[in-house]
Amino acid sequence: MISRSDAIHLDDRDPLGHLRERFSIPEGVIYLDGNSLGALPNHVPARLQKVIVNDWGDGLIGSWNTAGWADMPKRVGDRIGRLIGAEPDSVIACDSTSVNLFKVASSAARASDRSLILTDEGNFPTDVYVLDAVARQHEKTLRMWDPTDGSPIGDDVAFVAMTEVNYRTGERHDMAGITARAHAAGAVAIWDLAHSAGALPVHLADCAVDFAVGCGYKYLNGGPGASAYVYVSPGRQPSFENPMTGWWGHARPFEMSLAFEPHDGIHRARVGTQHVLSLAALDAALDVFDDISLEDLHAKSLSLTSLFMDLLADSVPGLEVVTPREPHRRGGQVSFRHPNAYAVVQALVARGVVGDFRNPDIARFGMAPLYVRHVDIWDAIQHLLAVLANDEWQSEAHMNRAAIT
Amino acid sequence: MISRSDAIHLDDRDPLGHLRERFSIPEGVIYLDGNSLGALPNHVPARLQKVIVNDWGDGLIGSWNTAGWADMPKRVGDRIGRLIGAEPDSVIACDSTSVNLFKVASSAARASDRSLILTDEGNFPTDVYVLDAVARQHEKTLRMWDPTDGSPIGDDVAFVAMTEVNYRTGERHDMAGITARAHAAGAVAIWDLAHSAGALPVHLADCAVDFAVGCGYKYLNGGPGASAYVYVSPGRQPSFENPMTGWWGHARPFEMSLAFEPHDGIHRARVGTQHVLSLAALDAALDVFDDISLEDLHAKSLSLTSLFMDLLADSVPGLEVVTPREPHRRGGQVSFRHPNAYAVVQALVARGVVGDFRNPDIARFGMAPLYVRHVDIWDAIQHLLAVLANDEWQSEAHMNRAAIT
Repeated sequence: MISRSDAIHLDDRDPLGHLRERFSIPEGVIYLDGNSLGALPNHVPARLQKVIVNDWGDGLIGSWNTAGWADMPKRVGDRIGRLIGAEPDSVIACDSTSVNLFKVASSAARASDRSLILTDEGNFPTDVYVLDAVARQHEKTLRMWDPTDGSPIGDDVAFVAMTEVNYRTGERHDMAGITARAHAAGAVAIWDLAHSAGALPVHLADCAVDFAVGCGYKYLNGGPGASAYVYVSPGRQPSFENPMTGWWGHARPFEMSLAFEPHDGIHRARVGTQHVLSLAALDAALDVFDDISLEDLHAKSLSLTSLFMDLLADSVPGLEVVTPREPHRRGGQVSFRHPNAYAVVQALVARGVVGDFRNPDIARFGMAPLYVRHVDIWDAIQHLLAVLANDEWQSEAHMNRAAIT
Repeated sequence: MISRSDAIHLDDRDPLGHLRERFSIPEGVIYLDGNSLGALPNHVPARLQKVIVNDWGDGLIGSWNTAGWADMPKRVGDRIGRLIGAEPDSVIACDSTSVNLFKVASSAARASDRSLILTDEGNFPTDVYVLDAVARQHEKTLRMWDPTDGSPIGDDVAFVAMTEVNYRTGERHDMAGITARAHAAGAVAIWDLAHSAGALPVHLADCAVDFAVGCGYKYLNGGPGASAYVYVSPGRQPSFENPMTGWWGHARPFEMSLAFEPHDGIHRARVGTQHVLSLAALDAALDVFDDISLEDLHAKSLSLTSLFMDLLADSVPGLEVVTPREPHRRGGQVSFRHPNAYAVVQALVARGVVGDFRNPDIARFGMAPLYVRHVDIWDAIQHLLAVLANDEWQSEAHMNRAAIT
C-alpha cells in the first residue's frame, strides 16, 4: 500500500507541481471541490483591481475600445477553445451554461423536423430542464436514453445532448463514439463540458461535435458564477439561429438598425452585454493554463483519481465507488455512495477536507489537477477513515442539511 | 443668462452634492456618459477585493451560504426594487437586459392567443430584435406603433413593450397612461427601465406594470456589463413561465430532481448561476443610493438637463434639440442633432467632455444626478461652443468612425 512519503514523491516528480503555489488555498484546507468552484489564482485580485480602477474608473466608456472589452467574449472564448480542441473563432464566452444550452438546443430543434431529443438520465438537472423546455417549445419529445446500450440512434432523433462527465458519478462518456453514432443517424450532437474542460483534454473538432457549452467556474477557476461559453462548429455557424437575437449578436451592433442581421461568425451566439468584471476574472484565471501540456494535465488528473480509488479500495473495501476505474471512462472526480453521505461530507468539511454531497447518497471529491497534490489525497483518505471509524458523521451538527454543501 | 458662478451656487445648494466625492471621476474629465456606463463609486474596488480574496479565495465553496451568494440576485433585486417602485420579492438581478426581456416577452406571448405585439420605433434595437424573435416564435406580428397618436390599442394586441426613456432622444414615455391603455384593451405592459432607474423615480407598482427589465451598468453604476434585472409583478408571478427553465429557477434546486418545478416566487425568473463578481460590484454600487430621496434625485436630474437645454438655447439657437422641454417628458439626458454629430462628439472627447454619438446624427449627453454638477454642464457647453465655433470637428482624427463612441 502506498505511503504518505510515496505520495510526496509523486508530487516531487509532478510536471505541474509548481502550479500549486499560483493558487490561494487556505491553510489547513484540503480542497476537493474544484469541480464545483475552482480555487482562486493568486494573480486574479490584482488583475481585477486593474480592470476596475484603471479600465472602468479611469478609462470609463472608452475602455470598450481601449481595454478590449468589446472583443473580450471572443478573446476569452478562443483561449478556452485551446483547452477543448475547438477551431479558432468558434467559441464565445458569455452568459451561463444553461442559457447557452438553450441557444444551441433551440437552434438544433428548430432546424429539424424530427420528433425526438435524446439525453441520459445522469445528465445535470438544469440540462434536462432546458432540453425539456426546448422540446416542448418545438413540439418534440425529450427521451431518456442509455448511451451504453449499443442500440442504434433512430432516424426520428433531431439531436443527442450529453454532458461528457457525469456530475455525480464522474463517469466520462465516449464523445467520439456517441457523436459518430448521432451523425450516422443524421442527428446533431451537443455536449456540455462543465466537468471536462480544464481537467482533461477535449477534442471537439476531432470528434466533429456540432455544438458545445461549458462552465467557467469549475476547473477553469474563473470565480463564482464566472461566464460560461458556447461552441458552434464552423460548419454549423452559418445556419445557427440564436433564439435570442440581441444586439451583440448583430453583424453591426452600433449601426443601431431596427432590422436584425446576425453576425456571420461565432458572435451570433452573443445576446446582451457581457458581464465584463466576471469575464475579466475568467480571462486572468486562464493564464495558469498557458504553457502547460493538456496531456500532462490529464495524466495528473488520472494519477490523483487513481490514487484516491486505490487507497479507498485498500482501506474501505466495502465502499461502493461509483466512478469507473478505466482511465478513459472517468473525469476528474471520484464519488462513492454512503447511506449518510451528507453527514460524512459535513464531518470531513469540519476536518478541513472539502468535498461535496449530491442527492441522494453521493459523496463527491473533485481533484483539480492544477492545485491538488497527491499528498492531499493521501491525507484526505486518512480523514475519511477517521470519520467512518469514529462515526463522526452521526454528530447532530452534520445531520442538518444546509442549502448547499 | 446663467453664469458659471450661478452654476456653482446651484451645486452648493444641491442636497446630493456631497455624493460627487464618492465617485472616481478622472481629473480633467467632464463625464456625460453615465447613461452608457456609470462612473466607479470609490468604495467598489475594496468591496470587490474582499469578495475575491475573502469570500472566493478563503471561503471557497462555503461562501455560497456564508457570504450570501445564493440569495444575492434577490437581495440585489430588492435593493433595485426600491428605486423602481416595485413590491418586495418581485425583482431579481441576473443575466442581461436582452435575456431578461426574452424571458418576460416569451411568457407574455405564450399566455395570449392574440396576434400582435406593439412597440415603438424609437425602442432600443436589441429590444426590437428580441421582440421580433419572440413574435416569430409565437406566430405573432411585431408592429411599430406611435404611443402618442391617441388611437386605442386593439383587442388583437397581446402586449405592449416600451422603453420608458428613449435612448437617443431622451424622451420619457407615459408609463402610467400607456400601461392603463394596454390594460383597458386586455393587453399586458412590459417596460424596459434601462435609461430610467437611478435617474428618475419609477413607479412600477403604482402604474400596475406587469413586467419590467433594466440594466445595471448605466445610472446604477454597477460596472461594465453589470447584471441586469427583471421584474414580475406579484400578480403575474404564478402564471409567469420562464422559457429557459434552469436549475436556479427551480423550487428546490439542490434536490437535483429531473422534473422541473418552478419556484413559486420571483426566483422562477432565474436560469443559471449568477455572475457573482459582477453582481457584487452592482450590490456595492447601490450603496450610494441608500438614504437619498428619489425626489431629490429626480429634481437634480431635471435641474441639470434644464440647465443644459437653457444654455444651448441661449448660445446655439439654431441647434435642433430633440429632447422634450417638459420635465415629465424627459429622462436624464439631452440630445441634439448635428449633421456631423460623430465628429462633434469626438472633438468634445478630445477636450475631456465625454458624451456619445448615436446613429445617424445624434449627439447625446447623459447627466447622472449622483455625480454630475451644474458647473460641469456650464463648462461642457463652453467646450461645445468652442468646438462648433472653431470647426474642430472637421479635424481628420474626429471624422474616423470608431466601433464605439
